[in-house]
Amino acid sequence: MTTPSHKALVPFVSVDNMMRLVHSIGIETMLRDLAEYVEADFKRWELFDKTPRVASHSDVGVIELMPTSDGEAYGFKYVNGHPKNTSEGLQTVTAFGLLADVYTGYPVLFTEMTMLTALRTAATSAMAAKYLAPKGADTMAMIGNGAQSEFQTLAMKAICGLKTVRLFDKDPAATEKCARNLGAFGLNVVRCSSPEEAIEGAQILTTCTADKQNATILTDNMIGAGVHINAIGGDCPGKTELAAGILNRSDVFVEFPPQTRIEGEIQQMPEDFAVTELWEVISGQKQGRRDDKQITLFDSVGFAIEDFSALRYIRDHIKGTEFFIDLDMLADPDDPRDLFGMLQRSDA
Amino acid sequence: MTTPSHKALVPFVSVDNMMRLVHSIGIETMLRDLAEYVEADFKRWELFDKTPRVASHSDVGVIELMPTSDGEAYGFKYVNGHPKNTSEGLQTVTAFGLLADVYTGYPVLFTEMTMLTALRTAATSAMAAKYLAPKGADTMAMIGNGAQSEFQTLAMKAICGLKTVRLFDKDPAATEKCARNLGAFGLNVVRCSSPEEAIEGAQILTTCTADKQNATILTDNMIGAGVHINAIGGDCPGKTELAAGILNRSDVFVEFPPQTRIEGEIQQMPEDFAVTELWEVISGQKQGRRDDKQITLFDSVGFAIEDFSALRYIRDHIKGTEFFIDLDMLADPDDPRDLFGMLQRSDA
Repeated sequence: MTTPSHKALVPFVSVDNMMRLVHSIGIETMLRDLAEYVEADFKRWELFDKTPRVASHSDVGVIELMPTSDGEAYGFKYVNGHPKNTSEGLQTVTAFGLLADVYTGYPVLFTEMTMLTALRTAATSAMAAKYLAPKGADTMAMIGNGAQSEFQTLAMKAICGLKTVRLFDKDPAATEKCARNLGAFGLNVVRCSSPEEAIEGAQILTTCTADKQNATILTDNMIGAGVHINAIGGDCPGKTELAAGILNRSDVFVEFPPQTRIEGEIQQMPEDFAVTELWEVISGQKQGRRDDKQITLFDSVGFAIEDFSALRYIRDHIKGTEFFIDLDMLADPDDPRDLFGMLQRSDA
Repeated sequence: MTTPSHKALVPFVSVDNMMRLVHSIGIETMLRDLAEYVEADFKRWELFDKTPRVASHSDVGVIELMPTSDGEAYGFKYVNGHPKNTSEGLQTVTAFGLLADVYTGYPVLFTEMTMLTALRTAATSAMAAKYLAPKGADTMAMIGNGAQSEFQTLAMKAICGLKTVRLFDKDPAATEKCARNLGAFGLNVVRCSSPEEAIEGAQILTTCTADKQNATILTDNMIGAGVHINAIGGDCPGKTELAAGILNRSDVFVEFPPQTRIEGEIQQMPEDFAVTELWEVISGQKQGRRDDKQITLFDSVGFAIEDFSALRYIRDHIKGTEFFIDLDMLADPDDPRDLFGMLQRSDA
């Protein structure tokens, strides 16, 4: 066996190690820290290399690569979306990602991202709510109680001071699971039997349902003045959650317009439907919430820069820990021109 | 520690295990087998999803993702190109790749591809030469004796019956290294002190130099009738090896025209310069070599389908071996909607 040099080794964070890292940091602390990393990258949004995601579609799902770079580091995420997987005991979405050094092209981190994507999505939602939700908002309706719901709730608690969450899912078992999982976090958790009941008294309305169809989880007459809507579930062509009437009454904030116009709630609207880019609010160039009556809507589909922030966070926080192993991923001959000699000598 | 289910595990082939796999199969057998996998995929070229590579450029190099799919499997390669790396003791090119199941979106193989790319590039060159080189060709000039040179030579031996290789590099140390590495393979190895000397009596001329510039490794008056030119080194914008006059006298065969017109030797030529797609020859739709006088030129830049073939080969050949380890890359909760519960239970 050849012993690879340190240059050939790339730190790998497994699912198990990612979970251990979360527990060692504390999930609420980690969500807060992640939100700060995402916020920092939104502030310097303009310097990123923004490629639309590269998608490979089939009849049953999609596989996507989401690359971006800030000129110093390069990151990408592999993510699939297969709604039919759940019925076969598999995850709808799995993901992994990689960070590399732009100067050498060498990878510096390889990590699971199924768990990490749930965390960064929640952190991004809460970071947006910090700028867009009405002052003093402490109650959220959580409509759709699937895999993302607990992460969303805890991020709103850690970052926006949420005290009460009102749960609804068309499947009561999902609500029960979500309420049980949230039991230990000191939140007031209310199980509701309809979307109408869930939104009572809530200043933040989060929709995160999984059906791949144009659904209407929230209708126009349900939405009163002054709320913030955090729409997570409309994230691919043909999949929306909100009535178009709501969009017409809201100020809509998005990540990357070319992507959101295809995948987000605003796919229902004309191509010139006015939106504000969230980074412009974060960097102080545009106003977020204007007054108490305004309906704000974060039409979130997820963007590569959020994954990049999460990869940076993991790179910075595994240093000196035991939460990774080194993978011998890169061939590293003593003489770079002698790859073949390296192969021959390995047979000794 | 949580024990992940088998669904969460992805076989990983490290550099060390890739080298052990090569030795266990035998490098010449492996090159022959790889050429068969590449040939099989060239025969069904039309059914592949062909995306141009997704490149992220910086002042010092490029990082690329190369995805493709045949509808059943999805593969991509990460590859960097940093010519200045060699002077810092690093590889110009490193690569890794992944194969996934289109039906579930779940990865099924993760592997180093620095070594594997050298093997697939050589296998592809030799497969092309089988169709394009003159009958009975048994002597090759190998101009540029860097990391790819031994692989090219052995593939031509294993697949085309090469008996003699004539080496030239502007750095005699590179030639010495190449000759030494090839010593054990029963070839007649001739060290030459000029390109002119190297091509004497050779029916196949392979150019594989590394300078990122428009160089003229072969000039027009060096090329006689009937030879096959295997041009490997012209593989990015601004990097060519052949005089334009040679291209005008040759029948030029390419992998994927939209990519080759940007990256290959034909970047020197007008946009409508006539080329034949190699897959059309392999699948019997177009003629390869026509007669003994024709100059054939394979203007090779490397394409995602060749990596896909190599990934398929590795997936098929690690089964039942010890040449991989399982990586816990995918979160796999018992209930797919209960990702958070999986995280909580891991803290027990």
